[in-house]
Amino acid sequence: MTIWQLDEDRCFSPEPAQRKMARVLFESVKPLALLCPHGHVDPNLLADPNATFGSPAELFVIPDHYIFRMLYSQGIKLEDLGIPTRDNTPVETDHRKIWKRFAENFYLFHGTPTGLWLKDELINIFGINKKLNAETADAIYDELSEKLTRAEFTPRALFKRFNIEVLCTTDAATDTLESHQKLQREGFPVRPTFRPDAVVNLETLGWKENIRKLSDASGIDITGYKSFIVALEQRREFFKSVGATATDHAALIADTEQISGQFAEDIFQRALQGRATNDDAQCFTAHMLTEMARMSVEDGLVMQLHIGSLRDHNKFLFERFGKDKGADIPLQTEWTRALQPLLQRFGNEKDLCVILFGLDESSYSRELAPLAGHYPALRLGPPWWFFDSVKGMERYLDAVVETAGIYNLAGFNDDTRAFVSIPARHDVWRRVTCHWLAAEVIKGILDEEDAIGVAQDLSYNLARRSYRL
Amino acid sequence: MTIWQLDEDRCFSPEPAQRKMARVLFESVKPLALLCPHGHVDPNLLADPNATFGSPAELFVIPDHYIFRMLYSQGIKLEDLGIPTRDNTPVETDHRKIWKRFAENFYLFHGTPTGLWLKDELINIFGINKKLNAETADAIYDELSEKLTRAEFTPRALFKRFNIEVLCTTDAATDTLESHQKLQREGFPVRPTFRPDAVVNLETLGWKENIRKLSDASGIDITGYKSFIVALEQRREFFKSVGATATDHAALIADTEQISGQFAEDIFQRALQGRATNDDAQCFTAHMLTEMARMSVEDGLVMQLHIGSLRDHNKFLFERFGKDKGADIPLQTEWTRALQPLLQRFGNEKDLCVILFGLDESSYSRELAPLAGHYPALRLGPPWWFFDSVKGMERYLDAVVETAGIYNLAGFNDDTRAFVSIPARHDVWRRVTCHWLAAEVIKGILDEEDAIGVAQDLSYNLARRSYRL
Amino acid sequence: MTIWQLDEDRCFSPEPAQRKMARVLFESVKPLALLCPHGHVDPNLLADPNATFGSPAELFVIPDHYIFRMLYSQGIKLEDLGIPTRDNTPVETDHRKIWKRFAENFYLFHGTPTGLWLKDELINIFGINKKLNAETADAIYDELSEKLTRAEFTPRALFKRFNIEVLCTTDAATDTLESHQKLQREGFPVRPTFRPDAVVNLETLGWKENIRKLSDASGIDITGYKSFIVALEQRREFFKSVGATATDHAALIADTEQISGQFAEDIFQRALQGRATNDDAQCFTAHMLTEMARMSVEDGLVMQLHIGSLRDHNKFLFERFGKDKGADIPLQTEWTRALQPLLQRFGNEKDLCVILFGLDESSYSRELAPLAGHYPALRLGPPWWFFDSVKGMERYLDAVVETAGIYNLAGFNDDTRAFVSIPARHDVWRRVTCHWLAAEVIKGILDEEDAIGVAQDLSYNLARRSYRL
Repeated sequence: MTIWQLDEDRCFSPEPAQRKMARVLFESVKPLALLCPHGHVDPNLLADPNATFGSPAELFVIPDHYIFRMLYSQGIKLEDLGIPTRDNTPVETDHRKIWKRFAENFYLFHGTPTGLWLKDELINIFGINKKLNAETADAIYDELSEKLTRAEFTPRALFKRFNIEVLCTTDAATDTLESHQKLQREGFPVRPTFRPDAVVNLETLGWKENIRKLSDASGIDITGYKSFIVALEQRREFFKSVGATATDHAALIADTEQISGQFAEDIFQRALQGRATNDDAQCFTAHMLTEMARMSVEDGLVMQLHIGSLRDHNKFLFERFGKDKGADIPLQTEWTRALQPLLQRFGNEKDLCVILFGLDESSYSRELAPLAGHYPALRLGPPWWFFDSVKGMERYLDAVVETAGIYNLAGFNDDTRAFVSIPARHDVWRRVTCHWLAAEVIKGILDEEDAIGVAQDLSYNLARRSYRL
Repeated sequence: MTIWQLDEDRCFSPEPAQRKMARVLFESVKPLALLCPHGHVDPNLLADPNATFGSPAELFVIPDHYIFRMLYSQGIKLEDLGIPTRDNTPVETDHRKIWKRFAENFYLFHGTPTGLWLKDELINIFGINKKLNAETADAIYDELSEKLTRAEFTPRALFKRFNIEVLCTTDAATDTLESHQKLQREGFPVRPTFRPDAVVNLETLGWKENIRKLSDASGIDITGYKSFIVALEQRREFFKSVGATATDHAALIADTEQISGQFAEDIFQRALQGRATNDDAQCFTAHMLTEMARMSVEDGLVMQLHIGSLRDHNKFLFERFGKDKGADIPLQTEWTRALQPLLQRFGNEKDLCVILFGLDESSYSRELAPLAGHYPALRLGPPWWFFDSVKGMERYLDAVVETAGIYNLAGFNDDTRAFVSIPARHDVWRRVTCHWLAAEVIKGILDEEDAIGVAQDLSYNLARRSYRL
Repeated sequence: MTIWQLDEDRCFSPEPAQRKMARVLFESVKPLALLCPHGHVDPNLLADPNATFGSPAELFVIPDHYIFRMLYSQGIKLEDLGIPTRDNTPVETDHRKIWKRFAENFYLFHGTPTGLWLKDELINIFGINKKLNAETADAIYDELSEKLTRAEFTPRALFKRFNIEVLCTTDAATDTLESHQKLQREGFPVRPTFRPDAVVNLETLGWKENIRKLSDASGIDITGYKSFIVALEQRREFFKSVGATATDHAALIADTEQISGQFAEDIFQRALQGRATNDDAQCFTAHMLTEMARMSVEDGLVMQLHIGSLRDHNKFLFERFGKDKGADIPLQTEWTRALQPLLQRFGNEKDLCVILFGLDESSYSRELAPLAGHYPALRLGPPWWFFDSVKGMERYLDAVVETAGIYNLAGFNDDTRAFVSIPARHDVWRRVTCHWLAAEVIKGILDEEDAIGVAQDLSYNLARRSYRL
């Protein structure tokens, strides 16, 4: 049986001169520490020194919608993959069986970034040297299971081994950040990110309960819009005190607006009475984005906007399994008119940093790059979600750099829940950016003497600067 | 005069390592039989053993809107190309003259897939070895005319020579399928496809007459919505009995809906009385797509959806020459919200197969791939129409595979009326997929040992499986 | 210190066979004269034999929104770059300081077309051989300042050196064209282009004053719609008599319409009374596009349409500095339905030439190429504005040629205000088209013997033919 290996030159052009240049650039960025300014790793995984990853199925399959959505698309039931149901109807509990279902369908990931990350993780982190498939499933399960019990494979050990300089999590506005405080006391470089969606979006399930939690967390009795704003400001200060440098906001569309305090109060009161309309909710979200930009101007927190995902498209699945089950589907996104109200007020603030993420590639060159290439307050986030991939990155760089330049980009972030996928994701970004820059050099567009600096900026400095780390 | 030849390595990268890999893959798919699960070949061409292709102008120019629309765009009148008018005003009848007009403008097809197919057809099927232009037009006309009278150039002879394993036609719901029944009795592998647009779309010219024909064909007296549904179900069964494995549905937009039986009945009655509104028609089409999915769940026919072409954009041309004259222009297409009602009901059916085709490339990565990468009932059709081209295929693979994977694709179909273009079209698909996979291997993304299997899946197995052939 | 140089093979593929072919093609187009059928050079620069370019800051920074918008996006104030304010508040007047700010931020242009043009201009036109940065800023400022005083660096001298065969400017309908008449008398090949936006768009600031100017210029007393049309026809004839071959029209959206004369009169009267609504303005613009096509059919002027830029997105900047300050942001553009009314009436006119320019790349393959590949009256303009770049051109060719062919393109135009950037812009187009055609040849899609002709068509003949020069 042949040894399963990763190509040393993966993601590079086969053309020898370009490949050679890509190698030179990659050598210069490979040793740089990893900055993880946006992601969804559970802080408890690191706060608790005894935390482990569980079984191979618990590490790789059950929590990862990138994986099980692909298996589901080919007719494999989520129950058979051990995905817990909301009503606790029993699902597969034999983790070896779950692993085998995954292993025999691993070929479904041919040509996908998930396939590339998994291969990288299995080989580079866990030392697996046989290709994952139906035949090898059992042996690999045993090998992984054994290794996952060792001290060198705990989250904290891997954090060190991965050479992560800082990792930011994403946390509800109501979160007490106990794990983060613990980590902060230890000097462990994990920072929270302030994500207020669940109190800002009036249509969130349990919104009123969330407002109550926000009152509790902030110590401010929220009786209306004004106290709501004060509570949010208080929470932002608290997040900052525990190390946060950024906020994060998700919305279906990019609309921003500036309504009067009285109008905002009216909507908020209707919401408290359970009478807010869909229009109210949309208007309030648009207004709050502008309001959050106002707070960022004042407190210096970087503002991230993630726009365009229609969540829980598959209602049947949502009802049975809940959210984040691989059924979030993008929509067309309009940015030019939508962001204008926010930019009118704060776009010229050079100390504000708003980082934009979208799922509609057609807007990269049409709207996002021209906006970022003009407004001092804007930076473009790296390719998001489905586009965090070899070709997704190439298209992103092709589409945005000519108009926005390199220095209106926010570098890379891995945006992952899957802690062990972090190095593989950064590796792909670093390889693809070096490959792309190599072409620029070889085609006479970028001077060779500048290329190493630019490669390091894309791999490290831009993220550091944009996120104020 | 130099010999006109096809490059043995056409469509492959010039980079030697990648080219070599592409050749290896291509050698493995080249001998595979052709599966033609969707197209518009006239079944009579094969049902009648004495059928011939007529003159070179009748074979290549007069029936092919890919050809004459390009000549028209440069100011050549359709009358001068022998395109028949609806009112029988005389048009050019000298086929040699038509051929010469085409030949002297053949350079207009530089860089187009039509140009590549024509060159392939002339050289590989007809043995022409001089480049087509004004000087060679006459001699090539003579050579083609002579060959077209030979037994080895009849449709049936070429069907065998092309190594076609099965060819599916597209047929009205009211079609009696006599040719198909004859072919079926002979064991000739031609299958019908059920296309009910002319009875489903209430705005079709002659819709009421079509309903009468549907009554006749089904033996069911259609007096309302209920009997309409029964008649459609009957016709689907009949199509199946003559070999059909699929249906096909074209619509301007992807909207689907589920309305009540009573509401559907109201609309249908208004339509019978000639009083249906534009909104009625749109709502009914959206509803019927969901209803057709329901029937597919029940009878197992694969469902194809072709969305986004605004037909007959040029009213002047339509009035003078009728439909399919190269004036169908795409529109932006929204899929995410539009398909939700249908997917809500049937998207989780793993035995349903709905194949999506669109003309808005921006939706490939944004909507189509995420939808197909999640819903068990969905597969993505190959690049359609204007995108059935070298670069169209490359962009398609680049845009969809990273998210949907290989195995949510439906392989290839040639979708052609031009029978002699079938091998050239499959050849381009096979070359481009092998070229694309070669890059994946050379760039370390796909293991070399997997590549041949994937190439064969893309060339043959995926179409066979998706269309249940 | 190393010599700053341009790669002789810039923009070409590193793959040796393709690069070699690109060189062969490029050698054949390099000596061809430059045709500049659309741009924004000030005719006085050439009409006045004593005109000069001023200081390096006046030549390169102060008038060029491509440059200062990028500096602005990184937090540099426009005041500090010497951009004049509308209220004459003082701005930086030390041109050396402005130049140094630009020079020390020149790295912001890495990977942008602006960066490539600037390098080309500095090296090839001005003989600079040190890379522009903070250290070299002063010396280069001195060298440029000195050269700009020499006779060989006057606009007229450079016009000759650039080998410009004809240059078309863009001029208001009310312009008296005195500079053009002077140039015409001298036989200097500069032609005006008729741009009536300021009298057609009812929402233009000062519209009524513009109408008065149009009365003066045409000698026709404009009291209503009918006399307005007569005055426009008169001006078009006048522009033709001074050498114009084309008109140009900018609009936010591509909507065209045909309203009755009476309806047009009603709107026009409302506008004269200052009571026109936003809907009036939009309807009138749509109508006037169709009306302008009617005039073009009659007088033979080529009609250019530039669609999709939302001007002056940044109100703060607009109020302080005025228009054209790098804050024009594209919108999504719909063409298929929008152009139908105009095409219904005039699309089949083979002697009409309407050239389309857009800023929404997603419409290239979806709408623009199919439209141009059918209607005799349509041609596609080259990639516009943000897309006038190496990768922008590659994507444009990839997206449109397979459907529209080569011969429905309008060749290249530089569309620049920056006179000294003209050769660099043409150089990029010529290089990229040769690179692209080289790939077509090497991949067996275009016959080698045809490639030189096509390269010359793209570089020269198509522009000449489309613009009737």
